Amino acid sequence: MASEQEAQIVLEAKKLPVSPTTYTYTERDVILYNLGIGATEKDLQWTYEGDDDFSAIPTFGVIPQMDAMSSVPMDFLPNFNPAKLLHGEQYLSIKAPVPTSGELISTARLLEVLDKGKAAAVTSIVETRDTSGKLIFENQSTVFIRGAGGFGGRRNASDRGPASAANDVPKRAPDAVVEEQTSASQAALYRLSGDLNPLHILPEFAAIGGFNKPILHGLCFMGISGKHVFQKFGAFQDIKVRFAGVVYPGETLVTQMWKEGNKVIFSTKVKERDSVVLAAAAATLATGSKAKL
Amino acid sequence: MASEQEAQIVLEAKKLPVSPTTYTYTERDVILYNLGIGATEKDLQWTYEGDDDFSAIPTFGVIPQMDAMSSVPMDFLPNFNPAKLLHGEQYLSIKAPVPTSGELISTARLLEVLDKGKAAAVTSIVETRDTSGKLIFENQSTVFIRGAGGFGGRRNASDRGPASAANDVPKRAPDAVVEEQTSASQAALYRLSGDLNPLHILPEFAAIGGFNKPILHGLCFMGISGKHVFQKFGAFQDIKVRFAGVVYPGETLVTQMWKEGNKVIFSTKVKERDSVVLAAAAATLATGSKAKL
Repeated sequence: MASEQEAQIVLEAKKLPVSPTTYTYTERDVILYNLGIGATEKDLQWTYEGDDDFSAIPTFGVIPQMDAMSSVPMDFLPNFNPAKLLHGEQYLSIKAPVPTSGELISTARLLEVLDKGKAAAVTSIVETRDTSGKLIFENQSTVFIRGAGGFGGRRNASDRGPASAANDVPKRAPDAVVEEQTSASQAALYRLSGDLNPLHILPEFAAIGGFNKPILHGLCFMGISGKHVFQKFGAFQDIKVRFAGVVYPGETLVTQMWKEGNKVIFSTKVKERDSVVLAAAAATLATGSKAKL
Repeated sequence: MASEQEAQIVLEAKKLPVSPTTYTYTERDVILYNLGIGATEKDLQWTYEGDDDFSAIPTFGVIPQMDAMSSVPMDFLPNFNPAKLLHGEQYLSIKAPVPTSGELISTARLLEVLDKGKAAAVTSIVETRDTSGKLIFENQSTVFIRGAGGFGGRRNASDRGPASAANDVPKRAPDAVVEEQTSASQAALYRLSGDLNPLHILPEFAAIGGFNKPILHGLCFMGISGKHVFQKFGAFQDIKVRFAGVVYPGETLVTQMWKEGNKVIFSTKVKERDSVVLAAAAATLATGSKAKL
């Protein structure tokens, strides 16, 4: 099991073809995403298409690639069960100005499969380009498949690049804190941006997953925290989070932020339960962006 | 000015051709509309496409016809100024089960132009059909154009059919009351269903219109009150309202309802300002619908 060689099943899985996916969108989709992560009528640059600075909140970059990411095959794993899949980490890099409408094409591939013993950790990478071929977003997503480990694959990541940084929280008090109460309908609204998993709206389905009630999408509260970073420090060129806990719609998120050079390390917790939900998280500020603090 | 004959300009205006408009929609648009008029994650029949009873709230019928309605020419009126246009009344009749996705075609025509002296009252009618030609919705909309009267047209409506009923509120206590606080972002969300008039989101634009801040769409709070009627009395086959005041997003609506035979007469006010915003309003309950009270 501790073999330094990747198991044959992983090598073969990496060769499986994955078809590109196309995401076509308008300014309305951008506003809907922005509202879905808590932008309001006060944030005209995010909710009014006629605003001079109208734009997608940068974490929008996780949306166009969603179909591609979820098309990465995982059934090569032993005992694969999609109900046992947990979203572990997300890394998004924004490579070029984000169009507010158009057509984007995403291509996914399997990057790494780690054998964690009881679970498998699968990291996929998706490149999202405009129709001219210009790279707009790169996403890396790690999911854990409980019960699918023990297949003899590698046990540790060698070099995962920027997504693998530790992002330990400094010992000093945070440089900025933003508190935001989500709405009870937050997941019902956010899901219209593309993730229609009933886990986020149907109580019976959430119960099967072991939750008291439907939970908020991880990528939704990643977006809310990313918005907080943007509001305090300006545009960022990448963002990475580890999903550490669940959020129920209606709960209050508290994002604590520390600026370290051009990087903002942050940690997000649910106020009502004092429970950390985003850890090992950081955003790299965009070159030339003016820190607002 | 008191002529019983319609003025020549009106007769000619009625002959102006109006092109049909097409509205293509998916279940996502239905959910977005429902959320826009305050449906929540508790109302799974309105916010979860997988629900057995998934449906549009019936007032959705005002949405597919919006482009057609606004294409009715009005510049035949003397001193026509679109900034002086006020939405006066809306009547919607639901003629057949409402599809939750598809393509609908709307055809508008000028029904009546009344000379109110200082203002003109213009009533248009829109028929909305599915691609097989089946009639789904009929809308009648009356707008007042301030400063555009005095052209010598008829002064009183003769027979406007169901939309012209008085719908006086009975003297007894209401049979049902529903109170609902709108969200501060209600208009920002509702506008994604098609009415992008900046009056509802841009403070500078609202100020030009003489308002302290952006106002909620009239058809939005008509929808919210229609939802209250539905929640208390079940499905209805038509609904008619007179817009009597403005609502600012975030204010609380109180809908008072009286059942009179198969008709529910209602009146809606803003709680915070004790101001009536929908008057002379009623819905006719659908034949065979089970009253919930």
